[in-house]
Amino acid sequence: MNFTDPFHDEHGDKLREECGVFGAINAADATAVTALGLHALQHRGQEAAGITSFDGTEFYSRRGTGHVAENFSSSEAIAELPGFMAAGHVRYSTTGGSGLRNVQPLYADLASGGFAVAHNGNISNAGTLRHELVGRGAIFQSTSDTEVIIHLVATSRYPTMIDRLVDALRMVEGAYSLIVMTPEGMIACRDPLGIRPLVMGKMGDSVVFASESVAFDVIGAQLIREVEPGELIRVDFDGSIQSLHPFGKQAARPCIFEHVYFSRPDSIFGGKSVYSVRKAIGAQLALESPADVDLVIPVPDSGVPAAIGYSQQSGVPFELGIIRSHYVGRTFIQPSDGARNSSVKRKHNANRALVEGKRIVLIDDSIVRGTTSLKIVEMMREAGAAEVHFRVASPPTAHSCFYGVDTPERSKLLAARMELEPMREFIQADSLAFVSIDGLYRAVGMEERKKSCPQFCDACFTGDYPTSLTDLARREGKDAQLSFDKVA
Amino acid sequence: MNFTDPFHDEHGDKLREECGVFGAINAADATAVTALGLHALQHRGQEAAGITSFDGTEFYSRRGTGHVAENFSSSEAIAELPGFMAAGHVRYSTTGGSGLRNVQPLYADLASGGFAVAHNGNISNAGTLRHELVGRGAIFQSTSDTEVIIHLVATSRYPTMIDRLVDALRMVEGAYSLIVMTPEGMIACRDPLGIRPLVMGKMGDSVVFASESVAFDVIGAQLIREVEPGELIRVDFDGSIQSLHPFGKQAARPCIFEHVYFSRPDSIFGGKSVYSVRKAIGAQLALESPADVDLVIPVPDSGVPAAIGYSQQSGVPFELGIIRSHYVGRTFIQPSDGARNSSVKRKHNANRALVEGKRIVLIDDSIVRGTTSLKIVEMMREAGAAEVHFRVASPPTAHSCFYGVDTPERSKLLAARMELEPMREFIQADSLAFVSIDGLYRAVGMEERKKSCPQFCDACFTGDYPTSLTDLARREGKDAQLSFDKVA
Amino acid sequence: MNFTDPFHDEHGDKLREECGVFGAINAADATAVTALGLHALQHRGQEAAGITSFDGTEFYSRRGTGHVAENFSSSEAIAELPGFMAAGHVRYSTTGGSGLRNVQPLYADLASGGFAVAHNGNISNAGTLRHELVGRGAIFQSTSDTEVIIHLVATSRYPTMIDRLVDALRMVEGAYSLIVMTPEGMIACRDPLGIRPLVMGKMGDSVVFASESVAFDVIGAQLIREVEPGELIRVDFDGSIQSLHPFGKQAARPCIFEHVYFSRPDSIFGGKSVYSVRKAIGAQLALESPADVDLVIPVPDSGVPAAIGYSQQSGVPFELGIIRSHYVGRTFIQPSDGARNSSVKRKHNANRALVEGKRIVLIDDSIVRGTTSLKIVEMMREAGAAEVHFRVASPPTAHSCFYGVDTPERSKLLAARMELEPMREFIQADSLAFVSIDGLYRAVGMEERKKSCPQFCDACFTGDYPTSLTDLARREGKDAQLSFDKVA
Amino acid sequence: MNFTDPFHDEHGDKLREECGVFGAINAADATAVTALGLHALQHRGQEAAGITSFDGTEFYSRRGTGHVAENFSSSEAIAELPGFMAAGHVRYSTTGGSGLRNVQPLYADLASGGFAVAHNGNISNAGTLRHELVGRGAIFQSTSDTEVIIHLVATSRYPTMIDRLVDALRMVEGAYSLIVMTPEGMIACRDPLGIRPLVMGKMGDSVVFASESVAFDVIGAQLIREVEPGELIRVDFDGSIQSLHPFGKQAARPCIFEHVYFSRPDSIFGGKSVYSVRKAIGAQLALESPADVDLVIPVPDSGVPAAIGYSQQSGVPFELGIIRSHYVGRTFIQPSDGARNSSVKRKHNANRALVEGKRIVLIDDSIVRGTTSLKIVEMMREAGAAEVHFRVASPPTAHSCFYGVDTPERSKLLAARMELEPMREFIQADSLAFVSIDGLYRAVGMEERKKSCPQFCDACFTGDYPTSLTDLARREGKDAQLSFDKVA
Repeated sequence: MNFTDPFHDEHGDKLREECGVFGAINAADATAVTALGLHALQHRGQEAAGITSFDGTEFYSRRGTGHVAENFSSSEAIAELPGFMAAGHVRYSTTGGSGLRNVQPLYADLASGGFAVAHNGNISNAGTLRHELVGRGAIFQSTSDTEVIIHLVATSRYPTMIDRLVDALRMVEGAYSLIVMTPEGMIACRDPLGIRPLVMGKMGDSVVFASESVAFDVIGAQLIREVEPGELIRVDFDGSIQSLHPFGKQAARPCIFEHVYFSRPDSIFGGKSVYSVRKAIGAQLALESPADVDLVIPVPDSGVPAAIGYSQQSGVPFELGIIRSHYVGRTFIQPSDGARNSSVKRKHNANRALVEGKRIVLIDDSIVRGTTSLKIVEMMREAGAAEVHFRVASPPTAHSCFYGVDTPERSKLLAARMELEPMREFIQADSLAFVSIDGLYRAVGMEERKKSCPQFCDACFTGDYPTSLTDLARREGKDAQLSFDKVA
Repeated sequence: MNFTDPFHDEHGDKLREECGVFGAINAADATAVTALGLHALQHRGQEAAGITSFDGTEFYSRRGTGHVAENFSSSEAIAELPGFMAAGHVRYSTTGGSGLRNVQPLYADLASGGFAVAHNGNISNAGTLRHELVGRGAIFQSTSDTEVIIHLVATSRYPTMIDRLVDALRMVEGAYSLIVMTPEGMIACRDPLGIRPLVMGKMGDSVVFASESVAFDVIGAQLIREVEPGELIRVDFDGSIQSLHPFGKQAARPCIFEHVYFSRPDSIFGGKSVYSVRKAIGAQLALESPADVDLVIPVPDSGVPAAIGYSQQSGVPFELGIIRSHYVGRTFIQPSDGARNSSVKRKHNANRALVEGKRIVLIDDSIVRGTTSLKIVEMMREAGAAEVHFRVASPPTAHSCFYGVDTPERSKLLAARMELEPMREFIQADSLAFVSIDGLYRAVGMEERKKSCPQFCDACFTGDYPTSLTDLARREGKDAQLSFDKVA
Repeated sequence: MNFTDPFHDEHGDKLREECGVFGAINAADATAVTALGLHALQHRGQEAAGITSFDGTEFYSRRGTGHVAENFSSSEAIAELPGFMAAGHVRYSTTGGSGLRNVQPLYADLASGGFAVAHNGNISNAGTLRHELVGRGAIFQSTSDTEVIIHLVATSRYPTMIDRLVDALRMVEGAYSLIVMTPEGMIACRDPLGIRPLVMGKMGDSVVFASESVAFDVIGAQLIREVEPGELIRVDFDGSIQSLHPFGKQAARPCIFEHVYFSRPDSIFGGKSVYSVRKAIGAQLALESPADVDLVIPVPDSGVPAAIGYSQQSGVPFELGIIRSHYVGRTFIQPSDGARNSSVKRKHNANRALVEGKRIVLIDDSIVRGTTSLKIVEMMREAGAAEVHFRVASPPTAHSCFYGVDTPERSKLLAARMELEPMREFIQADSLAFVSIDGLYRAVGMEERKKSCPQFCDACFTGDYPTSLTDLARREGKDAQLSFDKVA
Repeated sequence: MNFTDPFHDEHGDKLREECGVFGAINAADATAVTALGLHALQHRGQEAAGITSFDGTEFYSRRGTGHVAENFSSSEAIAELPGFMAAGHVRYSTTGGSGLRNVQPLYADLASGGFAVAHNGNISNAGTLRHELVGRGAIFQSTSDTEVIIHLVATSRYPTMIDRLVDALRMVEGAYSLIVMTPEGMIACRDPLGIRPLVMGKMGDSVVFASESVAFDVIGAQLIREVEPGELIRVDFDGSIQSLHPFGKQAARPCIFEHVYFSRPDSIFGGKSVYSVRKAIGAQLALESPADVDLVIPVPDSGVPAAIGYSQQSGVPFELGIIRSHYVGRTFIQPSDGARNSSVKRKHNANRALVEGKRIVLIDDSIVRGTTSLKIVEMMREAGAAEVHFRVASPPTAHSCFYGVDTPERSKLLAARMELEPMREFIQADSLAFVSIDGLYRAVGMEERKKSCPQFCDACFTGDYPTSLTDLARREGKDAQLSFDKVA
């Protein structure tokens, strides 16, 4: 069974995680290990990949557009990046069009020596900080929010690198899971709310860090634990490991959408199996919104685990009513005669012999714009389904993300534009239901969502942003935050 | 759910269909239709693709290595191939290394005008015929067996094209589904035993032909019927359609492996839904070889339908115990430390949280060399499975195919090398079972396999080849056929 | 000083030799030698290059578009073509757009074994012969006239290869210098009139053949002699060399334009130094058409030797009044403001400081369409030249070539469209003169042109074609030849 | 006649100008104009090219490796760079291997807005300044010396851009011709000694700047004058032009090697025609060092003007004894048999028929390592020359350049290693002479070289560097300058 490949979605009808990071220190083949690990995180960002390594003297860097395999599978590529420490990055989009400059890891020669950083997340006051830094004569090489951190480190007056980094991070707001390399070793850290994931592993004498535990499976490393929200872990070349919590303790708010869609089903996130959480969401959905049907059919591939959960809870058989093609990714010229909707059919084809005359329920992980959902419902009807019900394994996605996830403008989100019944009408389903927000929390193992202090960042569903959004406020004027919430 | 992608199997541990063909006549955008149809047949051959079109005056051709999307998705590519008739081909390997020369459709300027042909199958006396033709001064442009047909047509003394083609086909032996284009129209035909598939469809005034019905779904055409074994269907530009059976009637022997693995699950083959046949094989397997286990786990993606059938028949839950990555296709540099078996893990990763401590049964469609099966069993045990049973949705594959399927040398086929118990030991499963040959026939809807006159070509399982194999006999000496059967 | 590079002439205002051939036998590194030799012939054809080699067992072939250096300078490329015999080809255009298929050497598997051929020239009855061969069932792979020779050899009934080749050549008419490879050795031959050049050289035990002697200089081989008109030279792997004259003796008619423009100035053609012939033409021109000027200025680079001759004969100083850039070959976007005629200026720039206020005579090798000549005269006037006279080191080019030279349609040749005075007016020169046809013959060392039996093919100047032109006649009807001569 | 193409010299046996710059303001098609102008400066740097444009709001940049034509001849490329102001740069080497980062124009977002700079020359205290800037928290994006200027501007406390630029330039030492773009307009300037060239032109309402006047010819602009040493010229969008001399007056020291070799012969440098200066050097050489020979032969192409001057002064005929191929640039695999020295022969071939038995004098512009000179003398002897004399149109090149010219390590310069007679012996000439330093000054129009205050920078001949060399001194310790002069 394949995990979801959101970026091949030609309709852009999925939220997209923008980055994945990986680091390895004290590893004989640090770059080869990083390439493999990064490859396992490919679903977190397919548009560009980069690796920076350090051999005790020099830093080496190679960055390119496209997949990890296109850039880092040759022995020549690996040989260009010698050393026993390396960090890598996959990213979705190179915002601003300035191309390779924004591909990470970013690197700079500071007075203290080389400094490389790979970042998953988004600094929500980056624009404001950048403006101040440029005013003092700083010259930026990229349009990346991450570069702000480097300039803050470069101009910090603290004497040690770790103090300069903490000094810099105190000034930034938002979401960040970072892997930093200096001539003294590797530092991994996570923002105080732990919005984006980061895990730590071990492989012999090597220490490894990754956005998801699945990267450890492919390289044969053991998952040790999550990097804690607000924690900095420093690993030196003598193998010593030091943990710091310079920001004090705070209730964590990890991203709940990692469970819904971003992470691979074989990853462990927040101590939970993503696959089993997704099945539990499906079961919860069956309890909350049963359907009197003959078949449970997943929208492949991301709807599969929830569909299995729905089927097992409801007793209605799980069947492959939609067959997905591997060979997508390009738009073909549409012939004028006949081939209506062929672009969606190239990707998803109805298993006509199966669904003909049947009442079915489709299970998908989420609805973003709704355009793909509509086409899939139409396709099922054309294939002869008697009834088409739709169940969604997440609450309605009604708010944008400012923490490193690519969301369409809010006005394009179906759930920001209309209520449940108009949504049902829009996608032309016989019935439509989303799992409730408390149901989602239950599937993740909580009793319910604590309203005063939610256990996760669920802003995309609730609009409840766990940090201030300085850049947004500056752009939109004083009452930006307020008016923003009124859009819906 | 994805259909199987055999050619991304980096261990070569699947049989590989070598070709897919598609043709469209009397279509306003014949080339665009053909590109889309061919794209839906991509799983039948990923190494090269070609399309030839005809606009009433000229033939146009474009062929390239790689996928259909790489060669035929731009408007420039389509514009190079104008006309209302087109035929295309995807193929697996360019045997002989002469590169593009062997990519089909093959084309020749005959005295009667242009002649293009796309062929799925293999001519088993091609070498012998070629030797004779060269002796008479013929110059071959390719090393393809298909070119023999063109030379036979070119030198035939019959007055009409259809007679020359029949004259040529009378001389060839083996498997062929052909789409031929001449300045007079399109001819589709299938060898007298109908070994390889070919279906006919309709889209408005256009007539289309394809290796599998799934190609019609994507373009919005309707499946009319199969081209019959031994039938030639001629379609002219005035829309007239003529059916010929020049070779007399014979019992058909279509390839049963199309049901097992080659065809997409959403195709209809021999009037049966491939998906439902695969589920039936899984159910049959559950009846024949039950397993006392907690979970039914498919080897993705080709084992999924049979696993659903096995689960439904046995009542044991179907679960995704193996997660397959989309991002494969290249070999990475293996790091020296730790990352054992990372190449198989890049493709298939254990869903450790699910299988830990569980008794499981793995369902795969077939076993070829057995090397992948071994690695998957090992991976399940490393992930903590308490017992690992293995069930195979086809009988043991013990014989090579000479009809257009790429099989390893017979000595590399696990089932040609050993009996059941040693096979089980080799793949280190707690138990191993294959569906019986009669069970397979039952799943396809027969009561049993008729020994005297089997209803399918099942030579890969039984060694019972439905045609003589002239080239092989010539290579191996008089009693080749005999000794061949003794290898096992 | 550079030799002429006709194909970078973006106005197409030069005649273009269409091919160069090279062969080496009994050479340890036959392919490396051939690549170097071919590179020295690059000026004879820049659009495609190919080499075929033979190692005693197999033939190997590699062909590509672009320059020799782009295709044959890597060790990988050379390693793909092992053996001690190789032949190569550079060509100008791939007529008919069928791409690589027409790139030579052409190769075929005949009943007698492999057969490769590289051809410089043009078969003027190729279309007629092709029609007959296709009628007998032959299938052509290319649109090249050369392939006719292969089919004639393939279907010849003579027992030996050399007899079959002679049999084939008896049927063809036109110009050909061929290098043929078979499993028995190499055969070089030249048509009975010796229209296109071919020379033979020696390097240790190796025998080499080339279109021009300059190819021997670069590889360190010695020029032995020209292959004689109508001669076949066969070289075997034991080193034996055999000369045949199967067509009887005939007066030769080598192409006089090789002296005017095609050949490199450092080549020896017909026993004469091309450089010294070009100087002699310039001197002859000074005698026939003196000019009362201050400076003799060559149109670079092809006008340089004639300009030196003109200067030395007339006593007027030779000066670089036009500077030519190396960096041409692409068309730039023309800015709207100002940059008039920048495309010609990118290639040729006036040495303004030199020519300002001076009376000058420009020397060019030939005038084809006249468009470039006009622009150069204009450029000299803009730069301040007081008078601009024009002298041409060949007679007026008024007829097309059918022997392997790319000429514009006759109606585009300036000299086919108008007399001398209108030509002068067209190019806006103060005076214009061409060398006389007898003057040209004198420069080449003859007393005069023998009208009844000219010593050279000079059809482009005189319209006196030395062979019949069967295909042309067939295309144009019975009295084609006649009407053709009446066009002017 | 072609101007010299130093970078195709595969033996690196020429000094190489490292850069050319071009700028256009108030031009409707600023980028198209710049691309054409840059193309005319291609000989000053072939390894990379870049253009930055400004449309009143945004800056746009495109930089690539390879020639201008490869990067800027498509309409897509031009369309990416809209605006009425643009500046471009060609460069030789991307020192330090950091690839595109060092390709100019460099660009930065300063607090005052965008800032782009294209630089020809070399800052001889760049390393020292960079060290100080990094210590204050500056982050460099490139290893280019030019970036130092940007950081000095970014951190300058002066209120206006022109003051900040002057402030920055006061701190730098060495050679620079700069074209700067800001949102207010274009600033062109030249270091106080005017070491590297820069000229100003006009085309309608547009103002253009370029390294050489030849760039104006191709775009149809008029040369106005040189930018003066130490001058800043500021052009605004309203067309106003302002000239500043903020550094006071100083005697200029332009590079004399521009006359010898770097500039195109059709350029005007320091008010003199480069072609006529080169002829004058040849004439001077003939007076100083006559040779009793039959032929004057240039080493093509750079020796041609001096050879014409030598021939006209001496009365010995000028002849093309060496033919140069256009088709060079790649190294071929050397065959083992025979083809000795084929790499030099691919580029230069002896006109054997001409030189055989003759006494010749070869004229070249300069001798750097001497290896090519040796090969050319050998080639002439192999071709049968009776005597081979060698005359050089510049004094012995015995010192490295630190002002933006790529010179080999001093220990590789032939004239730094040995006196005249050993040099003659090394290159195996019958006699060898260089023009005297005073002779060179006379050819340029001076009476003699003023020892106390030379009119040119001639450090490569005399070791008399016109500026201090801070970085070099820092690297080599206190008495670096001193010991440096003792190397010879």
